[in-house]
Amino acid sequence: MKACGIVAEYNPLHTGHVYQMNKTRQISQADCIIVVMSGNFVQRGEPAVIDKYARTSAALKAGADIVVELPVYYALSSAENFAKGAVLTLNEMKAASICFGAETDNADCLAKISRTIISESPEYKAILNKALAEGLSYPAARQTALLEYLPECKDIITGSNNILAIEYIKAILYNNLNMTYYPVLREGAGYNDDSDTAEYASAFGIRKMLMSDEHDKLKTYLTAGMYEEISNSKSCPLFPDDFSNIFNHKMLFIKQICNINNTDFAEKLAEYEDISPDIANRFVAAFTGRDNITEFAMKVKSKNIVYSRICRCIMHIILEIRKSMSDSYNNIPYIRLLGFNKTGQQYLGSIKKELDVPFITKAADYKKELIFDFACSDIYAQAVYEKYGYVMKNELQQNIIRI
Amino acid sequence: MKACGIVAEYNPLHTGHVYQMNKTRQISQADCIIVVMSGNFVQRGEPAVIDKYARTSAALKAGADIVVELPVYYALSSAENFAKGAVLTLNEMKAASICFGAETDNADCLAKISRTIISESPEYKAILNKALAEGLSYPAARQTALLEYLPECKDIITGSNNILAIEYIKAILYNNLNMTYYPVLREGAGYNDDSDTAEYASAFGIRKMLMSDEHDKLKTYLTAGMYEEISNSKSCPLFPDDFSNIFNHKMLFIKQICNINNTDFAEKLAEYEDISPDIANRFVAAFTGRDNITEFAMKVKSKNIVYSRICRCIMHIILEIRKSMSDSYNNIPYIRLLGFNKTGQQYLGSIKKELDVPFITKAADYKKELIFDFACSDIYAQAVYEKYGYVMKNELQQNIIRI
Repeated sequence: MKACGIVAEYNPLHTGHVYQMNKTRQISQADCIIVVMSGNFVQRGEPAVIDKYARTSAALKAGADIVVELPVYYALSSAENFAKGAVLTLNEMKAASICFGAETDNADCLAKISRTIISESPEYKAILNKALAEGLSYPAARQTALLEYLPECKDIITGSNNILAIEYIKAILYNNLNMTYYPVLREGAGYNDDSDTAEYASAFGIRKMLMSDEHDKLKTYLTAGMYEEISNSKSCPLFPDDFSNIFNHKMLFIKQICNINNTDFAEKLAEYEDISPDIANRFVAAFTGRDNITEFAMKVKSKNIVYSRICRCIMHIILEIRKSMSDSYNNIPYIRLLGFNKTGQQYLGSIKKELDVPFITKAADYKKELIFDFACSDIYAQAVYEKYGYVMKNELQQNIIRI
Repeated sequence: MKACGIVAEYNPLHTGHVYQMNKTRQISQADCIIVVMSGNFVQRGEPAVIDKYARTSAALKAGADIVVELPVYYALSSAENFAKGAVLTLNEMKAASICFGAETDNADCLAKISRTIISESPEYKAILNKALAEGLSYPAARQTALLEYLPECKDIITGSNNILAIEYIKAILYNNLNMTYYPVLREGAGYNDDSDTAEYASAFGIRKMLMSDEHDKLKTYLTAGMYEEISNSKSCPLFPDDFSNIFNHKMLFIKQICNINNTDFAEKLAEYEDISPDIANRFVAAFTGRDNITEFAMKVKSKNIVYSRICRCIMHIILEIRKSMSDSYNNIPYIRLLGFNKTGQQYLGSIKKELDVPFITKAADYKKELIFDFACSDIYAQAVYEKYGYVMKNELQQNIIRI
């Protein structure tokens, strides 16, 4: 059996995602579609609007054969780490190929860009360093350098939806993986486009509809399965500001313990993943305990620190994701199965013996490996309870989704 | 000048307290009344209904000459430690005497009980140990033993309001202090009596009126100054359940960090002051993150663990009060002035040079000593903000009260 992978968040799953799944099956000629999906927290540094099991169910109903969880460490990482975690997971699962959305289907040009970044030729590096010295943030400097070094790829370099595509290819090339990659030209609205006139609304636009409770509109853009999950759920939607109290209290406690022990608050914050000394100082200066998360992130944001990175830093603090953990994630520590259908089951049977890392189907058997996922789910469930008064199943009570 | 001390919480200040102040002045013949008052947290393991500065102002208007703060470590302690902290503070301030409410004015009998507990004669100890072996809690066993050992003091031993009186005398005798003690027969309702028919309502009864917003009734029982403070305050009343979110999040974070580091949650909780291994286990078993504080305390309560102790344990967790701190409080580490009038100022001038510990009048000059008070005030202010949206002054912005 031949499998093709998709990396997704399905936050929430919409008709554009179904288009991608169909395209994937068609282009890759795969028998089995494996989705590596973010769990309860997503790459923008936000909670998923609805929990991972509901999204898994919707994904299976929409055509996925297997859904596995991208561990939260990768899910809440930079595009580079996010892509690395996802690609390595697909590789562990013996996926022959990966298919991803992009604003181009020019695989050659995407590969050229990826190779340039990996190889860091002296010429490219000189341009990059010059841009960094001028005070640009790393992503901005890289874009400037690439534009100068590869002028023929101009349109692709500036396409915001090509960033992840480039990172997927980079992960494949860097790790010498035997994995074919298929960029699929993305249809419909752009990533951050909240217009709802396009044939496919973006997940961002749909989250805005959810926030303003426009359920009728939602029905048009979500898959039937996703719409049903959302309509029947007692625990959704969840947004970043539903974690504001949790964040403020966590910060207050860290500050309090620092004060009592006479240690530096900013230094303590800089122990969390992705928090630079500069970001830590900005957090300390901005913190009052009275802002909600979006207000706080806007206060901390600067020319050189993008909003989504700040949101990820906030989630790292809430979820106790520390720099010291990074070594454990140089390689995929395990694969966690969220759901599958009959085709998926057949495929899993065929690769089961070849897996190099624990393949977790029963959480209770891997309490040690999953301690982090459990903690994250507990925090997610706490926010759900505080918003809706609804008690979610915990990770040990929750079964894998089968359709 | 001669001073007499009163130990109080004034939570809130009512007419019964004024009666006690007048009696104190009359019995002690003192020129100056020093009040040692709990700050923003009180001995029942609760937040004060209104902050310490408002209560200080009311106390001065009601007849106190000096108000100093009982450090939160003592304020949130057992009756024994609470009394010790207060008595040692008054002794540092050269108070010639102390006056306290009791259900008896039989000072001899109170002293006899106190001496029995301190000296622990073999006979008394044998009875005590037998009672403990039968599974009684320490306070219950002590009462049983005292009743058997000092049958002539029966009525006094069983009077709930004599517990603190005995502890004040114990602290004086144990530390060989040169301090006269005057028990004042308490008038009006009992400590836990919520009837409002007595001439003086109890603070407990008044808190119930506050909770149900019976402002007209309040006016009858509170002093004019206290009523004014409460009426004008934008940050009161505050009750234990206003800290439920803070408590649940703190517990969740401790649990999360224990899980991640593979350390024992109960052991971690037992690092906090007054939390025995048994209480820690009960906390772990009861914790869901979904109860408010009073619900949680009721779940943890048992025959051997009284409710107020559980509430103090909860506050120890919230405020980071750990067993490791106890050594720093064997003696009074400092005295913090909250307010004074002209008589008080004169008295302070007369003793200033004889003080053995820092006498703090300007918080900014004692940031290190007060780091704990600052942290407690920050948590109190956080709960106020979450309930009322009002930003309280922090400890550095707040001036001492002078009338």
